[in-house]
Formats: sequence, structure tokens, C-alpha cells
Amino acid sequence: MKKLWHNCHIATMQHGKYSIIENAAIVTLGNVIHWIGPEQDLAFDQYDETADLNQAWVTPGFIDCHTHSVFGGNRSIEFEKRLQGMSYAEIAAQGGGIASTVRATREASEEQLLLSALKRIKSLLKDGVTTIEIKSGYGLDYENERKMLRVIRQISQHLPITVKSTCLAAHALPPEYEGESNAYIEYICTEILPKLHEEGLVDAVDAFCEYLAFSPEQVERVFQTAQSLGLPVKIHAEQLSALAGSSLAARYQALSADHLEYITEDDVKAMAASGTVAVILPGAFYFLRETKFPLIDVLKQHQVPIALSTDLNPGTSPCLSLRLMLNMGSTIFRLTPEEALAGVTIHAAKALGLQDTHGSLQVGKVADFIAWEIEHPSEITYWLGGDLSKRIIYQAQELQIS
Amino acid sequence: MKKLWHNCHIATMQHGKYSIIENAAIVTLGNVIHWIGPEQDLAFDQYDETADLNQAWVTPGFIDCHTHSVFGGNRSIEFEKRLQGMSYAEIAAQGGGIASTVRATREASEEQLLLSALKRIKSLLKDGVTTIEIKSGYGLDYENERKMLRVIRQISQHLPITVKSTCLAAHALPPEYEGESNAYIEYICTEILPKLHEEGLVDAVDAFCEYLAFSPEQVERVFQTAQSLGLPVKIHAEQLSALAGSSLAARYQALSADHLEYITEDDVKAMAASGTVAVILPGAFYFLRETKFPLIDVLKQHQVPIALSTDLNPGTSPCLSLRLMLNMGSTIFRLTPEEALAGVTIHAAKALGLQDTHGSLQVGKVADFIAWEIEHPSEITYWLGGDLSKRIIYQAQELQIS
Ligand SMILES: [Zn+2]
Ligand SMILES: [Zn+2]
Repeated sequence: MKKLWHNCHIATMQHGKYSIIENAAIVTLGNVIHWIGPEQDLAFDQYDETADLNQAWVTPGFIDCHTHSVFGGNRSIEFEKRLQGMSYAEIAAQGGGIASTVRATREASEEQLLLSALKRIKSLLKDGVTTIEIKSGYGLDYENERKMLRVIRQISQHLPITVKSTCLAAHALPPEYEGESNAYIEYICTEILPKLHEEGLVDAVDAFCEYLAFSPEQVERVFQTAQSLGLPVKIHAEQLSALAGSSLAARYQALSADHLEYITEDDVKAMAASGTVAVILPGAFYFLRETKFPLIDVLKQHQVPIALSTDLNPGTSPCLSLRLMLNMGSTIFRLTPEEALAGVTIHAAKALGLQDTHGSLQVGKVADFIAWEIEHPSEITYWLGGDLSKRIIYQAQELQIS
Repeated sequence: MKKLWHNCHIATMQHGKYSIIENAAIVTLGNVIHWIGPEQDLAFDQYDETADLNQAWVTPGFIDCHTHSVFGGNRSIEFEKRLQGMSYAEIAAQGGGIASTVRATREASEEQLLLSALKRIKSLLKDGVTTIEIKSGYGLDYENERKMLRVIRQISQHLPITVKSTCLAAHALPPEYEGESNAYIEYICTEILPKLHEEGLVDAVDAFCEYLAFSPEQVERVFQTAQSLGLPVKIHAEQLSALAGSSLAARYQALSADHLEYITEDDVKAMAASGTVAVILPGAFYFLRETKFPLIDVLKQHQVPIALSTDLNPGTSPCLSLRLMLNMGSTIFRLTPEEALAGVTIHAAKALGLQDTHGSLQVGKVADFIAWEIEHPSEITYWLGGDLSKRIIYQAQELQIS
């Protein structure tokens, strides 16, 4: 089907800039952008359908490139206890923290995990997200990582959203491996990853490189396995300390290194050389009341693309809005609204290896876009929370959002 | 009409606590709560209608007790320029800041102001707000303050929401009074306030007490006029410096003193004695990247009720979600989720003088409530941004939110 979308302005986000086309039109053919440009340049043609966008501002659909949106339970009671004055140690002694999410996720059925994830992802979707990455990492054994990844694969059968799955078995040490982290890494590399990859459940491999999770050496072992399986890698690095995990990831041509509060200039240079995207996560920064900032200026100076994401997870970022992360990216990390928007479109696409098909509005790319009822694209970042009036077009089809 | 709402749990918010009733029911008669309690205690009766709330958690409707949601234009371009590195001075030199909002508000027609305000208030409403306070303060002369207040009076004809209007003519010095702030205060006290009050447009009077706005003496002159007209007062105080504006407000039995980053213990004691509510505004604190915290612990110790609000305004808090302010109230100001919820219900009602009819779920109060699809009321504060599934009941009628 050939469809004309017209009477709009477009921030195409090519080259990480607004790259504005005023008084523009888009022609979609099937689910792809067939033509885009100033409406006055449109040659006469016949269309199966025409949509008047009524002077809306069009941007690419949002890409949330780092989420843990499949999990059992939630940690709101723990959140409340912390604010009532209970310490982390007391909460951990009561079985709280990530251990409680692992327990709840292991206990949950695929159907329960799916239903609760769909509720959360529906909130992201209403906010404009058309592509999402979701990580495993609360199963921590073959059966339960598999269960999570199977749920992740089912999401797009229930909601109009493109999903990339990441195996994060190296997220935390499961209780049954206490004191034997090398043995757990062996288990990941010889069983979990090869089997799940064989079942076609894994699009990328991630690991949490931090003193309270896994060492750079252990993460490297995981990356070697991923490489041997032909899977791209990502890393959680430099969130709480500087272990040069992002440099390590760059050596393995990682798609992205994420968090990065403690990143060094050497790490930045390594990422620039390997084309690794920096994913910054203002929701976790805000929720944990961090004070150490990632080196945004150094990242920019070395032209490392900066993506923004919700990090949606129950412990450190129970965040249900990617647009809110644009505001936090600007307010907290001082990105310009243009940079923030690039962070959830073109750069986020690259963080998922989707830069050839997603993330900007260009001929040949998938027709995922949002038509915002605003007067300037800076408003997308400026308005804090809540709901901006918009129309969402996924694969050239307009969604009925309710 | 007598209607039964059942199969739910209720956080009634009486006495500023959750005050939970599990397995509960509510009977509404007309727009009022006729009965509330454990479902098993419900005597047999006939109802015109019955609604199954399906194990939802019910809370009072949210009350946003401090907003500037009627204004012309917006300041997203200014927001973008600031992040591109332009200084406040340069922006002011280009006519930016509050002056630009005053200009745009004066230029706008009633209809334009109404339409843009309705869009923003619709976002708050979808988030659960059933009562809102809206201030004038961008007109700054009789005609334009009147225009704003007339728009404020029209909101509830277009949206299912209860509106209280506040005249904030003493918000900033209009350009035509430059260097003559006492003359402007005289104009407010002898013309603006008496005339607008006579037209029935004013429910309360507010003033901005700050070195860059009006002195305590000038604010007191406004309060004296309000008192002589029989209007309750409110104050913007202690946001950027300690001028004891909140103590002054307490001497006039103010409904609330708002912002309060620089409040002293003496101010707190004065507010406690006069029953003045402390309204804290985490959106503005966050947006301006403040570091000085209001004395939350001292306020609690003296049992001053603490309300939370969006402060929705174009310059320092373009915030479209009151639920986000609960999360910021907890994350930034360390309120417990229970205290945060009290801050947008029972305490916010008191900040508007509505404590006898709104803010908690009790027999005789207006039947404004929200039925949340969650497992514990702490989740309302815990989830960061986005949209939580809910049903909204306004004056005993369920809204169709789209
Ligand atoms: Zn993560
Ligand atoms: Zn205000």
C-alpha cells in the first residue's frame, strides 16, 4: 500500500541533528519510507490513502535501547521501607534487593512474566517507543534465562513494537553459586549462551562489569564466547567504579557501553575508535541520587554517539517513560534537546545495530514515526512528564492508543 | 443515584496516613460518599448501578494545589538556548524569561489561553488530578489578570475537574511599572483585587515574596487588602532566600506557604501555630537544579502538613504529571510514599481550604477517587513517569479517559 502523510514538519534526525524539513510530506510503501521531503517537491501520484498530519512535528519513533522490562514482582515495598529509614543491609538481610527479583522471576510462569511486562511496555509505547531492547538477567540459570528470553520474543506478538533481546546471564551471581563466580561464568559460557543462541533467542550478549558483579576478566570470558557464537556484545560499565569495562567492550567492538558515570578519557577514546555507543541512563542516576557525572563533554569531543534509555528495572529505575529521560538527559546531564532526541532515535538505533533500518527518517528506512502536536521539537524534551498529544505510526500504520 | 463500587482496597488517607481498608466497598449517593467500609459490613441494599473494581487500590482523586497552568506561549526555545550555552542575562536581553510569558499572555485571546491550558490540564487529569488550583500572574494589569481569571473559571466547563482560582497579580513587576514597585502594589490593592473580587473571579490571593519580586512589606500590603475583602491568602516564599515570608503569611492565617527551600525553624513554628500548609514543589527544585533543601524533618517534627504540587509553569516547572511529583517528593525530598500521597490528597485539600469536602475518602465527602491497577499503594510513588493503568471517578462518575 502506498500512503501519503502530509502537512507536517519533520525532524529527520539524520546525522544526529534535527535536520528539519518544514512543510513536509512522507510517502510510505509497505512498511518503508518511499519518499520524504518538502511537500512542494512531491510529484503528482496516486495514493491508496492520505493522512493529514495537521502541522504536527514528526520525529522518528523512539528507541529504548536498554531495558530490563521483564521481571517478576516489583520493589515498591522495598522502596517504601528505604524511605522509612531501613538500611540496605537490613533490606538485604530480609531477602530484598536483586535477590528478591531473581526469586520472584524464577517463581513466575512465562504467562505471568509476559502479562506484567506488557503492562509496563504499554506505558512506554504510549509515550512513543516503537523499538525496545529487553535483557534477561533475573533468571541466572539456563531454564530461567530461557524463560525470560522466550517472554521477550513474545512481546511483539502482543504489542506493535520491535523487540531486540539481550542475554544478560552475567548480571549477578545466583545464590547457588555463592563464592564460585568463576564457575558461574563457565556455566554461562559452556551451557547458557550456546544453548540459548542455538534456540535463536539471543540477539546480543551483555554483562555487568562492577566490583559487586563480575570482574573485567570474567566479562572478557563472556565476550569471547559471544564472539565465537557470532553475537554482538554490550556492557554495563563504570556505574559505580572505574574498571575500564568500556575499554574492554570497545576491544570487542561492543554495540554499546552503558551507565558510564566513572568513565575515563582513555575509555572514551577506545569507544570512539571502535564505534561503540555510550548509553547514559538518567533514570538510574536520579533514582540512586548519584552525584558523579559521566564525561558528557569528553564523549562529545571525541564524537562518541550518546544514547539515552530508561534502564527500566525494578531496583534502580522503575521508569515507564522514555520521554521523561529526554528531560532528565537535558536537566541533569545538560544535553541539548536536540542531542537528547538523537539519543533516543539515531544513536539508540546504533546501540542496537539497527542504524541501517531505524532511528532516522530517510528513504528505505522503516516507517516508524511520531507526529507531535507541538510547535517546536524542543518541546518534546522541555515538557516534564505527563502525556503530550501525538499520533504514533508503527511500520506505516497509525496506532490507536488507548 | 445510589451506586455501589466494590471489590477493592482503599487507602482513605484520613489523618494523612494510608488508613487502609482491605476488601472494601464504597456507596455513592449523588456525587457524595454515602458509605465506605469493609465489603463484608455492607448491609443489603438496592443500587441503581454496581461497579466491580476488580481488586484495584482506591485512593482519593489527586489535588494539584499550586499551578500556573494558564499562560501564553511556552519557553521551550529558551530552554534549548540555555542548554546550548546562552546565559540568563543574554536570554533576558533578548526579551526572554517571565517577561516573554507576560507578553505572550497579554497578546493571547481568552480562547487561545483556554485551548492551550486545556491541553496541559488534560494531561494532569489523565494522571489522576480531579481538583486543581490555578493562579493568574502573567497579566499584571487589570484587563489581563481578569482575562486569565475568566479563563480559569471556564476550565471546569470543558473538563471534569474542580478548579480553584488564585489572583497572583503580585507575581512580578510589569514593564510599565519599572522602578515603581510600590505604585504597582497600590494599583493591585486599590484596583485589581477589589474589582476582580467584585466580579467573583477570585478564590484566594497569592504573592511572590522574594528579592527579585516583592518585599515582605509589599506582600503584607496585599495581604491586608485580601483580608479586608475576606479572601484567604497564600504565598510564594523562601524559594531563593530567607525573607520570613512564610512567617508573615502565617500571621495572616495563610492557607499555604509554598516553595520554602530557605525556610527557618521560626517560620516552621509560625506555620504550625497558624495551621498553614507547607507546599513543596519538587518539579521546580529539579528543573532549576537547586541544592538547598526545605527543612522537611523540621516541618514534620512540628506537624506542619506537607503538600506536593506540580507548580506547572513555563519557566521553572513545565510539569504535566502530578504523580511524577510524588516520585520526586520521595526521591529528592525523602518523603515516604505514604507522605507523598498525603501531599496530593488530604494536605493539598487543606492548602485550598477544601479539607471538609475533599482530600480523603470519608462519608459526606465528594466522591472523587482513583482505582489503580496495582498491588500496593506505594507503587503510585515508586513507578517513575509514564502511565499507570487506572480508572478515574469524578463526582461519582467514571471518566472515559482517552
Ligand atoms: Zn541495566
Ligand atoms: Zn508558583
